[in-house]
Amino acid sequence: MAGQHEKGYFTEADSAEVVTGRNANAKDERLRQIMDVVIRHLHEAVKEIEPTQEEWFKAIQFLTATGHMCDDWRQEFILLSDVLGVSMLVDAINNRKPSGATETTVLGPFHVADAPAMENGADICLDGKGEPLVIHGKVTSVDGTPIEGARLDVWQANDEGFYDVQQKGIQPDFNLRGIFLSQANGGYWFRGVKPKYYGIPNDGPIGAMLEKLGRHPYRPAHLHYIVGADGYEEITTHIFVPDDPYIDSDVVFGVKESLLAEFAKVDNPERAEKFGVANPFWEVEFDFTLAPK
Amino acid sequence: MAGQHEKGYFTEADSAEVVTGRNANAKDERLRQIMDVVIRHLHEAVKEIEPTQEEWFKAIQFLTATGHMCDDWRQEFILLSDVLGVSMLVDAINNRKPSGATETTVLGPFHVADAPAMENGADICLDGKGEPLVIHGKVTSVDGTPIEGARLDVWQANDEGFYDVQQKGIQPDFNLRGIFLSQANGGYWFRGVKPKYYGIPNDGPIGAMLEKLGRHPYRPAHLHYIVGADGYEEITTHIFVPDDPYIDSDVVFGVKESLLAEFAKVDNPERAEKFGVANPFWEVEFDFTLAPK
Repeated sequence: MAGQHEKGYFTEADSAEVVTGRNANAKDERLRQIMDVVIRHLHEAVKEIEPTQEEWFKAIQFLTATGHMCDDWRQEFILLSDVLGVSMLVDAINNRKPSGATETTVLGPFHVADAPAMENGADICLDGKGEPLVIHGKVTSVDGTPIEGARLDVWQANDEGFYDVQQKGIQPDFNLRGIFLSQANGGYWFRGVKPKYYGIPNDGPIGAMLEKLGRHPYRPAHLHYIVGADGYEEITTHIFVPDDPYIDSDVVFGVKESLLAEFAKVDNPERAEKFGVANPFWEVEFDFTLAPK
Repeated sequence: MAGQHEKGYFTEADSAEVVTGRNANAKDERLRQIMDVVIRHLHEAVKEIEPTQEEWFKAIQFLTATGHMCDDWRQEFILLSDVLGVSMLVDAINNRKPSGATETTVLGPFHVADAPAMENGADICLDGKGEPLVIHGKVTSVDGTPIEGARLDVWQANDEGFYDVQQKGIQPDFNLRGIFLSQANGGYWFRGVKPKYYGIPNDGPIGAMLEKLGRHPYRPAHLHYIVGADGYEEITTHIFVPDDPYIDSDVVFGVKESLLAEFAKVDNPERAEKFGVANPFWEVEFDFTLAPK
């Protein structure tokens, strides 16, 4: 009964080839291709790590606990993808834009689909808390042409580092969210609050992992944007506060040089009155550039 | 604000280095070592796959569903590890035995810690269902010395492919389980039933994955053993029915050439009476060899 079986059996040396060999009749060719890569790297990693049975079981328990932490309001596997840089890598691979378009970064888990449409100049801060902020700029094509009617979907955390959906009943609904359209010259402007750094949820397995790895759970202060227009590639991005203490160590690796905005502290009563904010206030100018489809 | 930040930021090209660089102050050196390997292979795999955002999200959903399937009685992540050959690879790495020791294979999820101790010759089949089987052999050291008092913890599925713990209330408690001690000459023997192939649980995400990969969910017929003795390395293994239809395609890759037993169909009333089984019956001789610690 020997020889005939030998070829198909699993050995340490040819483990990945034996496993991928089973996928020869896959019904989904793309899945086969993906799983071949996953299996090969999984086996290479196990061979380099040489885990004990106990370490293997700890990994099983970690993945299980990560799954059990997920519900409608919490996605612990996305958090894992984020803190291991996988989310940013997938973003990078899918956004190799022509030179000149604004760079992209992670969407994050706090976008909501039905934020209110607002007029330019509106204040997205509904509870008046925090230091006032005025943001203005323009949306242009990569060739410099102003884009009228570009859609800017904007959201941010409050000055304590929480999004409205994390503090239902504490913050007003749709606090610090709004959708704006650029004007004829490509210009847009709105009022908000100066954002602050905040920690990602760290009471689950990912928080425990970061702690053991000696990593902090913080994201540097930022505002989120999704900017799009007819005939152009939509971009999902942030603008960051450059002097944030965590600007060089964003836990989800979202920072890019080109997304550092200048947050100017303005003490000028006339200018404050023009924008309709209390003096002093923060002012940011940031332009977005879109690539044609 | 440029240059000083540049080095730490994430780019597609140096993604893995940036992420592993954050683990420099890990509190657990072994975890740091493991995560460095995991991060490197994860990033290499993503770069080879180039997943779309939708494919990335499907992967997140798959892992989440796998976690949600796990409870006290079902371990879907172990199933994933099994069907991707990871469990067998970890087993292989941890059991590079000196030549001559019986080879090991996966434990499987159906071992119970408190099976009853039995006398040699006992019938572990408590409900009389299935074709009778007699198994005998001896336990020796790698140098051929018989080992007296070796402990053989044996368990198997019934002839419908289910373990007692999968059919609480249908099968008697502790059906087809027993712990035997080898005799002065190293010999052991017991009675059971001829095992049959069976499918791993395939009503969850892993079953759906196997289906899309064109893979069946079956394990070839086998009996489980954990064999140990004072002063020797314990082994966790199976013996397999060699002419099983799935012997060359075990869904968890557990089969090894050396673990194929000979299942002889015996039609001999005198021999049946000697063993205390109905005629005809199945007879297996299988010896175990242990390596000194």
